[in-house]
Amino acid sequence: MGDKPIWEQIGSSFVQHYYQLFDADRTQLGAIYDSSSRAKQLSLKNSLLPFQKIQHSITAQDHQPTPDSCILSMVVGQLKADDDQVLGFQQTFLLKNIQGAWVCTNEVFRLALHNV
Amino acid sequence: MGDKPIWEQIGSSFVQHYYQLFDADRTQLGAIYDSSSRAKQLSLKNSLLPFQKIQHSITAQDHQPTPDSCILSMVVGQLKADDDQVLGFQQTFLLKNIQGAWVCTNEVFRLALHNV
Repeated sequence: MGDKPIWEQIGSSFVQHYYQLFDADRTQLGAIYDSSSRAKQLSLKNSLLPFQKIQHSITAQDHQPTPDSCILSMVVGQLKADDDQVLGFQQTFLLKNIQGAWVCTNEVFRLALHNV
Repeated sequence: MGDKPIWEQIGSSFVQHYYQLFDADRTQLGAIYDSSSRAKQLSLKNSLLPFQKIQHSITAQDHQPTPDSCILSMVVGQLKADDDQVLGFQQTFLLKNIQGAWVCTNEVFRLALHNV
């Protein structure tokens, strides 16, 4: 990863960690959010989603530095929950370095339902 | 729009303006970008895209305020360029108020090719 820009290294590491955690044990997701933001509530919401198992696969990801020294990440992928059909999804994260740690301050998620 | 949060009013107004401008005359898009950022280059790139006419339709849009007083907007939609088939797309904008005007500092765009 040494030849990639630093924001791409941080962003792709975050994205990999996020979906691994989500698929393996989504009750642990709270740690990735900025504890002072509303995003923290998302971890609770995620943990309450009504499926037993889920698997995300990433089709594409993009990472950009922002003027406020944050990292903007957009992910396009597919997910399979329990025995449902595979669905496309889009997800955006805004990452910020707070007290030395990169945390998620904003997250937007949508299923690509219009393509079904 | 008065009962919507201010970030949603600003975000949805931006998004509407962006796609109207893109579809009508994309050479005018430069004005929506932060002139000090690399995003400005995107307007040039957009103006060089090799199609004569394009039409975007928005399926869903989400807007959130960020800790740095920016607005994070994610759009899911469909577009039709010239006589090509309709394609899904995902687009994320980061908007920042610079000297009293809301401008785009970051933009990420992807066609939803894996759903074709």
